[in-house]
Amino acid sequence: MTDTMNTLECVLCSRIYPLDIFNPFCAVCGNPLLFPTITEKKRFYLYKDFSLERYSEILPLKEISKDLLLGEGNTPLVSLKRIKRQFDLPNVLAKNETSNPTHSFKDRGTAAAVQKAVSLGINKIGTVSTGNMASSTAAYGAKAGLRTFVLVKEDISEEKLLATSVYDPFIIKVKGHYGELYRKSFEIGNKHNIYFMNSTDPYRIEGYKITAWELYFQLNKQVPDYIFVPVSAGGHIIGLMKGFQEMMDQGLVSRFPFFVGVQAHGCAPMVHSFKAGWEQYKKIEDSHTIAQSISNPDPPGGNIVLKWTRKYRSALIDVTDEEILSALKSLSEYEGIFALPASAAAFAGLLKFNSQKKIDPTKQVVLIITGSGLKSMKNLSFGENKLHNSTLKDLDQMFSEHPLFQKK
Amino acid sequence: MTDTMNTLECVLCSRIYPLDIFNPFCAVCGNPLLFPTITEKKRFYLYKDFSLERYSEILPLKEISKDLLLGEGNTPLVSLKRIKRQFDLPNVLAKNETSNPTHSFKDRGTAAAVQKAVSLGINKIGTVSTGNMASSTAAYGAKAGLRTFVLVKEDISEEKLLATSVYDPFIIKVKGHYGELYRKSFEIGNKHNIYFMNSTDPYRIEGYKITAWELYFQLNKQVPDYIFVPVSAGGHIIGLMKGFQEMMDQGLVSRFPFFVGVQAHGCAPMVHSFKAGWEQYKKIEDSHTIAQSISNPDPPGGNIVLKWTRKYRSALIDVTDEEILSALKSLSEYEGIFALPASAAAFAGLLKFNSQKKIDPTKQVVLIITGSGLKSMKNLSFGENKLHNSTLKDLDQMFSEHPLFQKK
Repeated sequence: MTDTMNTLECVLCSRIYPLDIFNPFCAVCGNPLLFPTITEKKRFYLYKDFSLERYSEILPLKEISKDLLLGEGNTPLVSLKRIKRQFDLPNVLAKNETSNPTHSFKDRGTAAAVQKAVSLGINKIGTVSTGNMASSTAAYGAKAGLRTFVLVKEDISEEKLLATSVYDPFIIKVKGHYGELYRKSFEIGNKHNIYFMNSTDPYRIEGYKITAWELYFQLNKQVPDYIFVPVSAGGHIIGLMKGFQEMMDQGLVSRFPFFVGVQAHGCAPMVHSFKAGWEQYKKIEDSHTIAQSISNPDPPGGNIVLKWTRKYRSALIDVTDEEILSALKSLSEYEGIFALPASAAAFAGLLKFNSQKKIDPTKQVVLIITGSGLKSMKNLSFGENKLHNSTLKDLDQMFSEHPLFQKK
Repeated sequence: MTDTMNTLECVLCSRIYPLDIFNPFCAVCGNPLLFPTITEKKRFYLYKDFSLERYSEILPLKEISKDLLLGEGNTPLVSLKRIKRQFDLPNVLAKNETSNPTHSFKDRGTAAAVQKAVSLGINKIGTVSTGNMASSTAAYGAKAGLRTFVLVKEDISEEKLLATSVYDPFIIKVKGHYGELYRKSFEIGNKHNIYFMNSTDPYRIEGYKITAWELYFQLNKQVPDYIFVPVSAGGHIIGLMKGFQEMMDQGLVSRFPFFVGVQAHGCAPMVHSFKAGWEQYKKIEDSHTIAQSISNPDPPGGNIVLKWTRKYRSALIDVTDEEILSALKSLSEYEGIFALPASAAAFAGLLKFNSQKKIDPTKQVVLIITGSGLKSMKNLSFGENKLHNSTLKDLDQMFSEHPLFQKK
């Protein structure tokens, strides 16, 4: 029997390796290694408070230390009735990951990886990030009392830097290609004993897998028909797919959701590679999109995403920045959900997909809202005729007479 | 038997009134009216997904429409072990309200009030707010398809306005005293059929009450020894106290937590009035604090807060902006919790209280983290020697040689 806690496998060339968190890549084909799928039925502890405790038996962790948790996971699944009506869609549910402690899905992965770091006695962790993963890693590093190193692109906004620096990590702005920086970080980690828990880290992916399991239980032990999720490095969609694989392998469900991975048109290496029918993704040189969290031009999980998207007869599509901004506006104005541009891309993807290939209205669609719009305020503007000025004295008159205020 | 769904009472002069959401104030003494305490044991549905559904039988709502919910409540309770050690404190737990859909506790109250608005067929809602309540009300108004009017002070920051305007409400910047604006809003609401769900709205307070019940269940049917919570208009602490009153009245617990309401030194009308021994609070003219969310110079719930703080032998204290910033830094650097200055004030209050009157180390303290620091970034700065620059080529050398990177 495979030791599912200390073995990693390459799902592309089927090689098995002993666990090495400092270098979780296939020595032959270079792709990220994952933990083997748990194929036996396990117990769940759904009455427990913390998500990692509820799903502890399907995680590659011997025990869960509550002292390292911030309350990640257990995110709400809400029905988007107004958007359904407005855009003539099937039933749409939003899995709102902005409820996580640092307001993005990254916390699920960071929480799992930090458990491992501490259990191994490692006291330095790091990450290479464009924003959400940086603040998440710095927050959990702080909670655990670890020294955290965050490597960022040199052009990162001050807004994003501040939201990370509040946790007091070392932040290093690095000049150079993001994909190379990603690879370089593992060299440095190996040499300096720093656990770089990057986007396709195997523990991170186990953390993301739990989202699939939460959906299964929130939907009364069913899986959704469609899942729309933004795709950047690939770790998130790989984690989600891995969760549903486990349900299939354990005989709990008989079908796999249709995944639609969504990228921004200005940074869509996966969509290009998928459409071209390639088995190996091709990186791109430059990315240009407002959806900064999904602007990875050289996605390390790319080849796994291509293989699994085909295996599960799913799809990868791209949307323009205009479509993203319009989707962001609709999510907030119709549903009260203020999402990151990257998350709004998932909804833009649904609108585009549905316009090209009408989804059966009886189907159930889940959008993954990956992060909070509060982290990316700079593309916003005020609605026309929505900002007014008054004195206390004139306020009543304004409500009585302003034509816009009168409509039902 | 009192009709607990359609009756409001003045807890200061004991008068009973029929429910009127447009004017929930005592006609005699002018104080906010509350729903009567539920004194009989009720059923809880803790297996349900949404907080309002779990606690539906203790809420003054005939039914809960899931279509109006955003996933508020069910917030994590996390243990602050590093802060405990660092500051020699008793057991400290944080109830992290930043997990709410718009990242503050206000969502609990807004969710309850919007249920009522929709059940009455009201299609216009409003609020008077300095920030968190504005975005919360606008978000739930959007979800419910209501027209939302947000009245704000003229000097509100653009950052806060944008985080509200994304939900597309009407925003009116009003010149004038905040307390007068609060009262004026009810006049306007009455006249124009707009339900102003302001800070001491009785449904809002019922929403906040649920936090107390969640704590009770998260602590295995116990109440904490101490609760530190920021105090502004008073609605939040009144709601929390009301929850524990219900547990006492229902015979579920035999003691009441010791509450410490915390204000900022630059806006502490409640602390002044409490120390002076007054039964009626005195408003102040100007407020000066970085903790904008608790900068209400004329708190409408003030008299109830004074009465109940004395009744439950609790306390009100103030902390300086320096103490608040230092507490904010400690919460993020030791515990990975990025809080609003107002929320950090609760922790600053704990440090001050404990330095004056050492809390027994066996006691359990709960801090209410009311809102996310992402909403107030402007007071932040980068840690000294924490921001570095490198090229890809020089990165390894930096990790090998930089003295700060070497320490264990």
